Amino acid sequence: MGHEFPGLFDCRVPSWMEQSGPEGDIVLSSRIRLARNLSGVPFPGQADEKQLAGIGHKVSFSIQDMEDADPVHAYRMLDMAGLTEQERRILVEKHLTSLKHIQQPGQRSLIVRDDTAVSIMINEEDHFRIQSLTAGLNLKAAWEMADATDNLLEQRLGFAFNEDLGYLTSCPTNLGTGLRASVMLHLPGLVLLGQMHRIVEVSTQLGMAVRGFYGEGTDAYGNVFQVSNQQTLGFNEKEIIGNVLGLVRQLVEQERAARQLLVDDSGDELVDRVWRAYGILRYARSLSGQEALSLLSAVRLGIDLGIITHLPPGVFTEMIIGSRSCVVARMAQTEKMDKVERNRLRAKIVRERIKGGESDV
Amino acid sequence: MGHEFPGLFDCRVPSWMEQSGPEGDIVLSSRIRLARNLSGVPFPGQADEKQLAGIGHKVSFSIQDMEDADPVHAYRMLDMAGLTEQERRILVEKHLTSLKHIQQPGQRSLIVRDDTAVSIMINEEDHFRIQSLTAGLNLKAAWEMADATDNLLEQRLGFAFNEDLGYLTSCPTNLGTGLRASVMLHLPGLVLLGQMHRIVEVSTQLGMAVRGFYGEGTDAYGNVFQVSNQQTLGFNEKEIIGNVLGLVRQLVEQERAARQLLVDDSGDELVDRVWRAYGILRYARSLSGQEALSLLSAVRLGIDLGIITHLPPGVFTEMIIGSRSCVVARMAQTEKMDKVERNRLRAKIVRERIKGGESDV
Repeated sequence: MGHEFPGLFDCRVPSWMEQSGPEGDIVLSSRIRLARNLSGVPFPGQADEKQLAGIGHKVSFSIQDMEDADPVHAYRMLDMAGLTEQERRILVEKHLTSLKHIQQPGQRSLIVRDDTAVSIMINEEDHFRIQSLTAGLNLKAAWEMADATDNLLEQRLGFAFNEDLGYLTSCPTNLGTGLRASVMLHLPGLVLLGQMHRIVEVSTQLGMAVRGFYGEGTDAYGNVFQVSNQQTLGFNEKEIIGNVLGLVRQLVEQERAARQLLVDDSGDELVDRVWRAYGILRYARSLSGQEALSLLSAVRLGIDLGIITHLPPGVFTEMIIGSRSCVVARMAQTEKMDKVERNRLRAKIVRERIKGGESDV
Repeated sequence: MGHEFPGLFDCRVPSWMEQSGPEGDIVLSSRIRLARNLSGVPFPGQADEKQLAGIGHKVSFSIQDMEDADPVHAYRMLDMAGLTEQERRILVEKHLTSLKHIQQPGQRSLIVRDDTAVSIMINEEDHFRIQSLTAGLNLKAAWEMADATDNLLEQRLGFAFNEDLGYLTSCPTNLGTGLRASVMLHLPGLVLLGQMHRIVEVSTQLGMAVRGFYGEGTDAYGNVFQVSNQQTLGFNEKEIIGNVLGLVRQLVEQERAARQLLVDDSGDELVDRVWRAYGILRYARSLSGQEALSLLSAVRLGIDLGIITHLPPGVFTEMIIGSRSCVVARMAQTEKMDKVERNRLRAKIVRERIKGGESDV
């Protein structure tokens, strides 16, 4: 508490994201989310101001428990109402909170670890949404962080739990484990080969959701997809994580095969496509969010395939997140910013970042 | 004679083209061409081998006259049949000769001044086609060079001339003066504003031809147009040149107005477009001839408008000619070169040229 977290409200990427994790050429990050509620208190949607305030008050005492159990990290509680609109928007762009959570900021707060790998949304759809994030494919590590936090909170606060249904949640789709295990993948190869439609279909039949992380459906901007479990009830945590992992490993394999096929069948075309994307990002004076994602995806693929060797792979996530949160951050400094100005600013941010990483190419 | 002209068969741009001439932001070059024939000898299309050989033999004695009258320059006679197919193609790409002229190289030759500003095609459609070239809008200088050469040849050889018709030529469209005055203009502003169709229409009514220099009609690749007189009969040389000059001056004015309008109304868009073109040229691994011209045109416009300041304007013509003749030149070193390889080579040449001119942008 009282500890300032540098970088939280600026363009910097969280430190946990700086290294590439397992299968880091395809898997950007792994995330565990646990939905929890106090018993005897209405869900946030039905609770009154006083009840909502009580929840924040209660959980604030757990921060000390968390710091005691984890002497390496500091934790901080952010009152949503105490932040500026821009600060709240940056937290959304960094996926530390949700649009829903900031819409009515009164009595909403966020506990966040200094490296942002662990966070707790308070009074979003449920009283608590524990979230943990790791780089690459590492649901196990994410699970361990979330589970430890969950245990600390449960010891002090007690959670609404039913022998038959498991953890009670505001929305029935989260009942049982309250667990959502999700993995963010970069799948440009499968998109280029037109295989995502089939994959989404099969995954749905397996009880898994595959969604474009930006944009709608299979037309994901930037070719970034999120794979997550749809069912939270009827399986235990280990089974759910195992199922997600199983599908992700298959997708990783298929993406590798797709990339190999592209290199073998149309390598020259691919190299040209990658360098053109690089050239546009390097020099364009206006970039829509959608175009930036699409070009960044091509550049990242180029890095993964060894076509571009002078940029670190992290530049992709960094620029996706960086260009988005920077735009929001700098918007704070101006009165108003229309679409034209945002696109100009986005191009400037990306240009400077690419130029900064450039040696002689 | 016997003087070697360095650069004639490689990628180098002729020295006369290195400086920018009058109205050089819009007018790339001015050209005068005179069609002349010997009397008493059939036109090349009807002449036999021996007659064709005789023409080459006769004109070869004029080279000394030309060098005596012009001590600054050397002149050389190239026997088309003695060149390789690639060398002939390079001369075509450099506009020193025509496709028609190299199709049957036997008894065809070219006299060329060391800076290529003056040349004479022998046994193309007519016995002699005298051509002179200057940078920018300078038909007067081009005329003086062509006229001097014409006078030298006429003194020694005598030309087919008729009191009523003037100079006799193989094709009736050249009868009279045998003069074609043409000016190459870069008109991206008028193309962007969709005004070229109207301009071509009006020009035709004025007896002028406005043609895309590359590509067909008003869809000129690279936005390069050639303005020339259609009539050679019924006007004297001064009138013809004056008419072409009059139209060109109007087009220059209109192009300047169009560029100003674009800067005023959509300056940001234009700047973005210019830099994107630059980025693609700087990094693409494959470029079709058409795309290269179109992107080079945008970059040249950017240079003319002060958007790009680190490249000399000449880079545009240099790359148009350079990328074309280099492709041909390097083709000579390989067995065969398909379209894919040509596009790759073109991209490499342009990339290296742009990179070479790059400081910090």
